[in-house]
Amino acid sequence: MRILTGVQPSGKLHLGNYFSVIRKLVEYQNNVDLFCFVADMHALTTFTSAKNQTENTYDAVCDFLALGIDPDKCTFWIQSEVPEVTELTWYLSMSITVPKLELAHSYKDKVAKGITPSGGLFFYPVLMAADILAFDSDRVPVGKDQKQHLEYTRDIAERFNAQYGDTFKLPEPEIDEETAIVPGVDGAKMSKSYGNTINFFDDEKKLKKSVMGIVTDSAGVDEAKDYEKSVIYAIHSLFLDAQGKKDLQSRFSTPGTGYGDLKKALLENILDYFGPYRKEREKIAADPAFVRSVMKKGSEKARSTSSQILDRVRGKLGIGLSRI
Amino acid sequence: MRILTGVQPSGKLHLGNYFSVIRKLVEYQNNVDLFCFVADMHALTTFTSAKNQTENTYDAVCDFLALGIDPDKCTFWIQSEVPEVTELTWYLSMSITVPKLELAHSYKDKVAKGITPSGGLFFYPVLMAADILAFDSDRVPVGKDQKQHLEYTRDIAERFNAQYGDTFKLPEPEIDEETAIVPGVDGAKMSKSYGNTINFFDDEKKLKKSVMGIVTDSAGVDEAKDYEKSVIYAIHSLFLDAQGKKDLQSRFSTPGTGYGDLKKALLENILDYFGPYRKEREKIAADPAFVRSVMKKGSEKARSTSSQILDRVRGKLGIGLSRI
Repeated sequence: MRILTGVQPSGKLHLGNYFSVIRKLVEYQNNVDLFCFVADMHALTTFTSAKNQTENTYDAVCDFLALGIDPDKCTFWIQSEVPEVTELTWYLSMSITVPKLELAHSYKDKVAKGITPSGGLFFYPVLMAADILAFDSDRVPVGKDQKQHLEYTRDIAERFNAQYGDTFKLPEPEIDEETAIVPGVDGAKMSKSYGNTINFFDDEKKLKKSVMGIVTDSAGVDEAKDYEKSVIYAIHSLFLDAQGKKDLQSRFSTPGTGYGDLKKALLENILDYFGPYRKEREKIAADPAFVRSVMKKGSEKARSTSSQILDRVRGKLGIGLSRI
Repeated sequence: MRILTGVQPSGKLHLGNYFSVIRKLVEYQNNVDLFCFVADMHALTTFTSAKNQTENTYDAVCDFLALGIDPDKCTFWIQSEVPEVTELTWYLSMSITVPKLELAHSYKDKVAKGITPSGGLFFYPVLMAADILAFDSDRVPVGKDQKQHLEYTRDIAERFNAQYGDTFKLPEPEIDEETAIVPGVDGAKMSKSYGNTINFFDDEKKLKKSVMGIVTDSAGVDEAKDYEKSVIYAIHSLFLDAQGKKDLQSRFSTPGTGYGDLKKALLENILDYFGPYRKEREKIAADPAFVRSVMKKGSEKARSTSSQILDRVRGKLGIGLSRI
């Protein structure tokens, strides 16, 4: 079974990313045929500068390699290195109507906010369909907010198959019921756009500042604390097994430990847990030549699949020198 | 100076194509840096079958090679063989807004006819901009109906340059005031969509039928004929020099020659003029291996330009392995 996922290179990773997505990807590569790419072409819809674009892509690659994505166990590449994807985007664009594209949430939301939409924003669902269909993906992990995109991909594939003959596999959503919802320091869902993240690759000083900023109620040192309502506990428990959770619960419910101490304990656990990854990341990031060579091999591996599928597509369309 | 032009592989060539476009292209290649491609990806917006798509592309290539497009004197390729074009399409899509795309004639006309537009139809101007901008084109020959597309291309280029820094040359329209307007057999402009064409690569029987179908007034053999109002004359004169025109005029104004004879004279002239091209075309079309190898070299030549320009574009966007 092939599972495909794309990750936006949108800056520093936080605990929400790790516990809801990345940890699972690292598991996938041991059990399924994982295809994972850094979506640098999608990131252009929120372009700030060439420097940021390059750095964000580099950071994302280093992050994933450091966290255990193993290019020998999976296929890991940078989106823009696989030209079959934009080629396929054009072919797929004949299999979706403008009225349908106008109904896409990602588009409607931006328009509702008064943003004049670019062609790229409008065509986002078609590029995403190409990302998925160019690799014969069986399953695509989807969050709630991406569910519609996969539906669009399935619609496009079904319509293409009807127009030109059976060509594409219909990908299924991979919904993990157990996915942890990780709260941010303010108690809302941890998300870069809320500014409430704990970024585990930050330097220790910044990391400390984030953890110390977690909201609490006003319970004093000498009071028992309700761990079930505590953001500190919700985050800390992600790192713990059953026994660890029990121990932490009792530290909360037994008077004598202040929130400051409980935050410090969380900080230590974060540093312990991510220590090896942080070291690995430093080593990788300091060696761009290594990163380039790994990613070059990655795109070749990806293209060995996508070029076969594009050949099939071109055949259905009657496109290509080999046919004349 | 680089002149770029794309030709739709849309079936058999007629005298209108030849005298308004092709003859000029063959001249261009001797005087300027001609870039000419067969727009097979655009043709997908009017797809009928894979077989037709392949045949139309093959026919267009054979037509142009037979008529004198010389791959050593110009750059001649099939659009879909140059992946930089669809890649660039995505990059350019961030430099045009949806409201602007909604105003494109090609889109509005189809919508006005009640056609539910596909994404491809809507994005047509962006692909066309990529066709032009991927090759640093200085000039693009435009008919009246394509003028807006070039304006779109210029708008996209200007906006991209403003967003990401100076990247693209602004192409200028190449408007030839002398362009012959070739009438069809019914007197209206010769056009495939009017069904009034004379297709010079048709077999002799069909060709004869087309020429014999030219409308005339009811002047009899023994009457003088007004050559200025005659479609036969308008078409025949395209083949003639000043002296030839004079001679033909006198055949019209001197009683004794019927329209049937004047049509036969035209037919003979068409067969004479296109005789060598028809032979050459037969020879070329019978050798697909030759055609493939010529077009393979053509796309390599085209890509040697487009890959440089894409590298420049990627640099402005901060995209690409070489930058990390």
